Amino acid sequence: MKKLINNPNNVTRESLEGMALAHSSIIKLNLDPTFVYRSDAPVKGKVAIISGGGSGHEPMHVGYVGKGMLDAACPGEVFTSSTPDQMLEAARTVDSGAGVLYIVKNYSGDVMNFEMAAEIASSEGIHVADIVIDDDVAVRDSSFTQGRRGVGVTVLAEKICGAAAESGYDLKHVTDVCRRVNTAGRSMGMALTSCTVPARGKPTFELGKEDMEVGIGIHGEAGRYRKPIVSADEVTEMLALSLIEDKPYTRFLREWDEANNEWVDVELTSTQFVPGDKVLAFVNGMGGTPISELYIIYRKLAEICQKKKLKIVRNFVGSYITSLEMQGCSITLLRMDDEMIQLWDAPVYTPSLCWGI
Amino acid sequence: MKKLINNPNNVTRESLEGMALAHSSIIKLNLDPTFVYRSDAPVKGKVAIISGGGSGHEPMHVGYVGKGMLDAACPGEVFTSSTPDQMLEAARTVDSGAGVLYIVKNYSGDVMNFEMAAEIASSEGIHVADIVIDDDVAVRDSSFTQGRRGVGVTVLAEKICGAAAESGYDLKHVTDVCRRVNTAGRSMGMALTSCTVPARGKPTFELGKEDMEVGIGIHGEAGRYRKPIVSADEVTEMLALSLIEDKPYTRFLREWDEANNEWVDVELTSTQFVPGDKVLAFVNGMGGTPISELYIIYRKLAEICQKKKLKIVRNFVGSYITSLEMQGCSITLLRMDDEMIQLWDAPVYTPSLCWGI
Repeated sequence: MKKLINNPNNVTRESLEGMALAHSSIIKLNLDPTFVYRSDAPVKGKVAIISGGGSGHEPMHVGYVGKGMLDAACPGEVFTSSTPDQMLEAARTVDSGAGVLYIVKNYSGDVMNFEMAAEIASSEGIHVADIVIDDDVAVRDSSFTQGRRGVGVTVLAEKICGAAAESGYDLKHVTDVCRRVNTAGRSMGMALTSCTVPARGKPTFELGKEDMEVGIGIHGEAGRYRKPIVSADEVTEMLALSLIEDKPYTRFLREWDEANNEWVDVELTSTQFVPGDKVLAFVNGMGGTPISELYIIYRKLAEICQKKKLKIVRNFVGSYITSLEMQGCSITLLRMDDEMIQLWDAPVYTPSLCWGI
Repeated sequence: MKKLINNPNNVTRESLEGMALAHSSIIKLNLDPTFVYRSDAPVKGKVAIISGGGSGHEPMHVGYVGKGMLDAACPGEVFTSSTPDQMLEAARTVDSGAGVLYIVKNYSGDVMNFEMAAEIASSEGIHVADIVIDDDVAVRDSSFTQGRRGVGVTVLAEKICGAAAESGYDLKHVTDVCRRVNTAGRSMGMALTSCTVPARGKPTFELGKEDMEVGIGIHGEAGRYRKPIVSADEVTEMLALSLIEDKPYTRFLREWDEANNEWVDVELTSTQFVPGDKVLAFVNGMGGTPISELYIIYRKLAEICQKKKLKIVRNFVGSYITSLEMQGCSITLLRMDDEMIQLWDAPVYTPSLCWGI
């Protein structure tokens, strides 16, 4: 196993300790239960944004804790859900009284554990909302999910909702924005190589020397199909057209109804992209892909969007939601409105994302 | 070959085109000869900073073009020096009359070509200085160099000199700062895996499944030794102690003497680190290493520096000077004075480095 680690069982803790040392002016690390939080939390009068889930996708989520984005992140072990006690203690720590929004990627373990934390937090008098992100068009249901997986849109939702909270939106309003981001975005990824979970010591899956996996999940779970590697332009076309041509997608997602103390199933529809849409184009590396290759993908993506009359109003190119050292990429398109553009542009200052400050 | 590319011969051009599309507000791309330059160049009254060299080390250098850092970068093909015509045309484009500083990594091809460009630029009336960075303690002379190689300190010199130029330092003063940064910094790297130059299609070198290469160069050139992989803490110790215990290093580096129109050999000494030194600690990923592993390295590095009484006043953790998809890392320590700290903290706004703006 070719990794820069010590004991495989300590990877997450040691990495978080290094991160906290490197960015002590921005974040603090709590151990037992483990979460990373803004060093100035709780921020008076501000809705707190919390996310979390398995580690191994860095910089997501811990790298996004700071002004203008997350108030706390709850990292599990590599590719393993974090636990309700982490999410609950994080909420207790960063809630200023204005409430907490949990942003949850749609994986069964994450969803279940955040729901449990939300119920307890609510019973303790914390105003809480819980929004599930399910933007991956590759598969419906997988070994990790009911429904579509939550991937690239999560990062964008964290940025946009973080800005909304920072600028004074109340909990209902931030939650509305988050739901809107989720239904406005679609993603799909592919892998050239597998990745190795440290505690397992072996690649998550085997991929032939000439093969790629299209529609892969961020834990290396299988995608739509496997085929011989094609050119970057063809990869871009496969992914981008899957997003652009994805039909309207309607599903029910559970949300916490604080007034009645119960979970309700909310019907949500992601409408199809149409000519004239303004989009944010996000080309993401899976961890082991050079940024130069991501720009080759972006070059073709810009051409496709132009042909499809989608106007790229913002772009985002880099390794922002990863699968350890996996080589590959994902593309996310997010339909933007003026409010979302303004929130995207707002200042952010975290260990891994910084502008405007 | 597992890469997200099209024709291997077009990798550099297509990647630059994608980058220019993604960051059109910051940079412009010139083709034939190829260079990337600040979209607002020439900046009136400001010394221009230009760097360049083989591609494959992204984000260096092209990702560092913008306000507060480089005015232009001249990318060669992957792992191949750029040519004098690129460097010369870049100088003509970005010089405002205040002069140009070429920051050159110590590789024989780069040094020779920048020297040629400097002579011609000077003969055209452009005030020009040329500083060679040679911070890699791993080896003296290599297949690519006479003397030590130029690695991590290059990025730091570009940031610090970029800030100096932005804040109005004249050419002599910026050049002095650059020389001082070079002699105050030391680096060393290691690799867990090789990398593959697209046009070659095969790994640059072979490394056993359980082996690592210590002291490797950024083109995959051999280092000090090869041995079985050890823990991240041991790797950190090997690299950090090589820097900290490196003896005073004196050499002659060629500089252009504009007054007399000739090259002069300037004697420079990098003094040893001593207890009490303030340092910038830079943990760099080689391209295919997850950021979580880099923080494990940083965690140990902070402990070692504390033990050696080196005070880390700034840190920098991420993949900033890479070797394509190589897994591995390098460590750079740079002795900082108050002026350098202030210049490091100054605003920067480039495709790959952004803060304070």
